[in-house]
Amino acid sequence: MEMITSKDNARIKNAKKLYKKKNRVDTYLVEGVHLYEEACQSDAEIKQVFVTEKFGHLPDVTLVSDEVMKFLSDAETPQGIITEVSLPSDQLVPSLFTKLLILENVQDPGNVGTMIRTADAAGFSGVVLTKGSADVYSPKVLRTMQGSQFHLPVVQDVEALTCYQQLADADVAVIATTLSDESVDYKTIKTPEKFALIMGNEGSGITTETANTADILAHISMPGQAESLNVAVAAGILMFSLTD
Amino acid sequence: MEMITSKDNARIKNAKKLYKKKNRVDTYLVEGVHLYEEACQSDAEIKQVFVTEKFGHLPDVTLVSDEVMKFLSDAETPQGIITEVSLPSDQLVPSLFTKLLILENVQDPGNVGTMIRTADAAGFSGVVLTKGSADVYSPKVLRTMQGSQFHLPVVQDVEALTCYQQLADADVAVIATTLSDESVDYKTIKTPEKFALIMGNEGSGITTETANTADILAHISMPGQAESLNVAVAAGILMFSLTD
Repeated sequence: MEMITSKDNARIKNAKKLYKKKNRVDTYLVEGVHLYEEACQSDAEIKQVFVTEKFGHLPDVTLVSDEVMKFLSDAETPQGIITEVSLPSDQLVPSLFTKLLILENVQDPGNVGTMIRTADAAGFSGVVLTKGSADVYSPKVLRTMQGSQFHLPVVQDVEALTCYQQLADADVAVIATTLSDESVDYKTIKTPEKFALIMGNEGSGITTETANTADILAHISMPGQAESLNVAVAAGILMFSLTD
Repeated sequence: MEMITSKDNARIKNAKKLYKKKNRVDTYLVEGVHLYEEACQSDAEIKQVFVTEKFGHLPDVTLVSDEVMKFLSDAETPQGIITEVSLPSDQLVPSLFTKLLILENVQDPGNVGTMIRTADAAGFSGVVLTKGSADVYSPKVLRTMQGSQFHLPVVQDVEALTCYQQLADADVAVIATTLSDESVDYKTIKTPEKFALIMGNEGSGITTETANTADILAHISMPGQAESLNVAVAAGILMFSLTD
């Protein structure tokens, strides 16, 4: 098998561009064995797989030198396998609207990835990210998400108020989380048949418009002294509390 | 007021050494205005405060140049205030033993900091870290912990099995979390009057010895497809479920 040994190779250069959102058309890169396996088991189409010799036994792969892998990789210690996978169609479909997590302007990639992973664990029907949230297909979100994008629909760049209107039209109860205690404690909420849980920005929370459109405003009562919870921890507490 | 302008100044060099655990005797550094204020309001003794001119109006501070601040700081964009604070006495005292979080060999600083912050929010009596866990007074743990070390006792470098024996002697119910579902679902646990919740290592969970000594082995049932939860998210779900 031939091996790509130059970082200037056009396929390598084009692949590396996919880390940046503006360069992505219909594919993105995932790194490591676990995400390669998840991609293979999913509905996603695999466009190409770059590997070092260690993974040369896998079918339909493109061999690259260690140096080229290091150039292409976003990891400090590359595992030696990077897969180019098709992006899902970013569509808000009604089937999403049963048990939905909405991230409104959540900016930390680690928080975004962790919340999508938790929504997957809790059996949510999908995750929607409004415009202004971290890019789902960036390396750091992909690392913390651990393949959950292959398990449930994740839709990004959604216009928040348009989405909330669609939810209202579909009789979905919108539960928005606030940072103040001038709202109901989450433990008193009886899980609605169809609901969407909105988590807001790390610093400023949900917007005033969102608070005005929500059916239920909820918070987590904190008996201790910390001023707030990490948003991903708060989302975990709420999602599992709403899961029967 | 005089200003320290050299990175070779002995006070600066000695302070910077405090980021490493092996160099700490009885003080550590916290960075930023929020932690300075938290330190002032706490029982901790403030040894010295290094500031740039921006914070020169504060009492009893040592002025340093922007360059020296940048050298001393662990942040990408230093706020301009670093406080040297006394370490608390690392003692396992019986008053800790009512609602305790134990981190057994948890290694990611972000996870450790987030869990201590969550324990603080949930009104826990203290947090114990066994030997092998991330260093509580490292910059990354301090950043994610957001000052919770000033709100509740945090004891590190504890020998796990010695601690569990002390808990047993004090009739504290030990709840250890497992990664398998061969244990009880957390939702079925009635909160014991006095309990300790053990969270295990990110990859391997709790040790076999710990599983054998625990009174209750618990897991979080996951209706979805994700293989596991982030340990800090899992800890949040469990701590708030055990909080009435």
